[in-house]
Amino acid sequence: MSSQTTIAIVGIGLIGGSLALALKKYSSLYHILGVDHSSRALQTALERQAIDSTATLEEASHQADILIIATPISQTDAVLRTCLPKLKRNALISDVGSTKLNVSTSARSILGSKIAQFIPAHPIAGREYHGIDAAQPDLFVNKKTIICPLPENRPEDLQKLQALWEAAGARCHLLSSEQHDAIFAATSHLPHLLAYAYMAHIANTDDMHIKLDLAGSGFRDFTRIAASCPEIWADIFSSNRSALLREFDTLQLLFAKIKSMIEHNQTDTLINVLREAAQTRRTWQENHS
Amino acid sequence: MSSQTTIAIVGIGLIGGSLALALKKYSSLYHILGVDHSSRALQTALERQAIDSTATLEEASHQADILIIATPISQTDAVLRTCLPKLKRNALISDVGSTKLNVSTSARSILGSKIAQFIPAHPIAGREYHGIDAAQPDLFVNKKTIICPLPENRPEDLQKLQALWEAAGARCHLLSSEQHDAIFAATSHLPHLLAYAYMAHIANTDDMHIKLDLAGSGFRDFTRIAASCPEIWADIFSSNRSALLREFDTLQLLFAKIKSMIEHNQTDTLINVLREAAQTRRTWQENHS
Repeated sequence: MSSQTTIAIVGIGLIGGSLALALKKYSSLYHILGVDHSSRALQTALERQAIDSTATLEEASHQADILIIATPISQTDAVLRTCLPKLKRNALISDVGSTKLNVSTSARSILGSKIAQFIPAHPIAGREYHGIDAAQPDLFVNKKTIICPLPENRPEDLQKLQALWEAAGARCHLLSSEQHDAIFAATSHLPHLLAYAYMAHIANTDDMHIKLDLAGSGFRDFTRIAASCPEIWADIFSSNRSALLREFDTLQLLFAKIKSMIEHNQTDTLINVLREAAQTRRTWQENHS
Repeated sequence: MSSQTTIAIVGIGLIGGSLALALKKYSSLYHILGVDHSSRALQTALERQAIDSTATLEEASHQADILIIATPISQTDAVLRTCLPKLKRNALISDVGSTKLNVSTSARSILGSKIAQFIPAHPIAGREYHGIDAAQPDLFVNKKTIICPLPENRPEDLQKLQALWEAAGARCHLLSSEQHDAIFAATSHLPHLLAYAYMAHIANTDDMHIKLDLAGSGFRDFTRIAASCPEIWADIFSSNRSALLREFDTLQLLFAKIKSMIEHNQTDTLINVLREAAQTRRTWQENHS
């Protein structure tokens, strides 16, 4: 028997695959089982040496010391239900989903007395590509992973999860699930919604081709996230519906004000709004580059 | 006397300065006069060898074979009025503004019978920084410059202007001013408006600091253009008001539809919208990288 910790990663896509690659690259402490309904994904993960072996979800649940659910959010409940009866007594379960309140609530209802074993988490890293082919060992390096502890979680389990993400290169940050969802509704889910809507708007026009042909670097960066996986993001929008729509409604009020400033030629007032935006973005850039 | 063409660049900022640097780097055909109300900008342009000498607007109008107005749009009329009485008989005037209908109309009223000498143009290149310090000789390389000829323009003048932009590395594309403004309202002005509004929305919240601290790469790219120069963009929004607000209103209808899909859990319909957006963006990326 090895002294390695056995980790099962359920869902060997962009995030699960990158986590596997990172742990293999930066640590020798982990034996990694890959679980995926796609045999091609598992084959690629083996070829890329991201995982040590493949397993069914039942086998993985039985063997894993730590089980990371890296499926789309809508599959989390089904995964939890399947692995629950097989779990090792002290096994730790975590996830990587972009919303946390929803998953915390449903995990509590599914896991019951074993809820202490589940720690919700969310690595703040991604790409507009998805699947194991897009996975990168350095995806999490110097990125943050948000951990949203439940009151029942044991400190030593939290430490285990933090150590895992730190081994992958991330820095960990603790938030409540409510805080997490409100913050990421604003900084991630809303921009994705706007970028998708804007891109669909362009796609809906007769002269789309000439527009796209003449689009420049501003367009490129503004719309990059609109190429993200539609199924995953529909899940996220639905899962964080109330916080997202709250942000969206507040932004609509500002849209209406700005529209009125442009309509009525209120240049000074408009410049003030643009200045606050530009100054905030520039300061952010200085502090985060 | 040299056989060089004398170009006066009025406004040695990001675009004017980059054009000067590009012509100096890639061509020996041009003698470049720099005009700017900021003596510091002129000094820097001389130090960076972007320009051969400095001139007042009156001197430049008198000497230039080609005069490029690279000021913010709101100053174009004043520049045209000042240089009009001094212009060489066959001098060519052009601009670099992000909107074209407005400038074409006012140039026609200012220049009168000399309108044939004015060719509206717009290089599709920019950065979120501005001023001569941000200028780069390769800013236009493999970028497009849109030229919006007036019916009065002479073919040989069009060729001169195209040769100039091609010398700077750009490829030229002809459009009517109306087409130009409609297309860029959609692909450039609307994204800037959305990014500025979104960023101002974030700046307006109590927990801005923690939001900014946890923001990731999606936020970074989506908001990059919100750091652009507020005065220049207030000008652009105002100058292209009607086309911009038409785009904005159409987008609002789609926003309302998407909001309703999220509210009413219409996942399949939502996924279809996101898919169309993602597919359009991915195809664009494949064709433009």
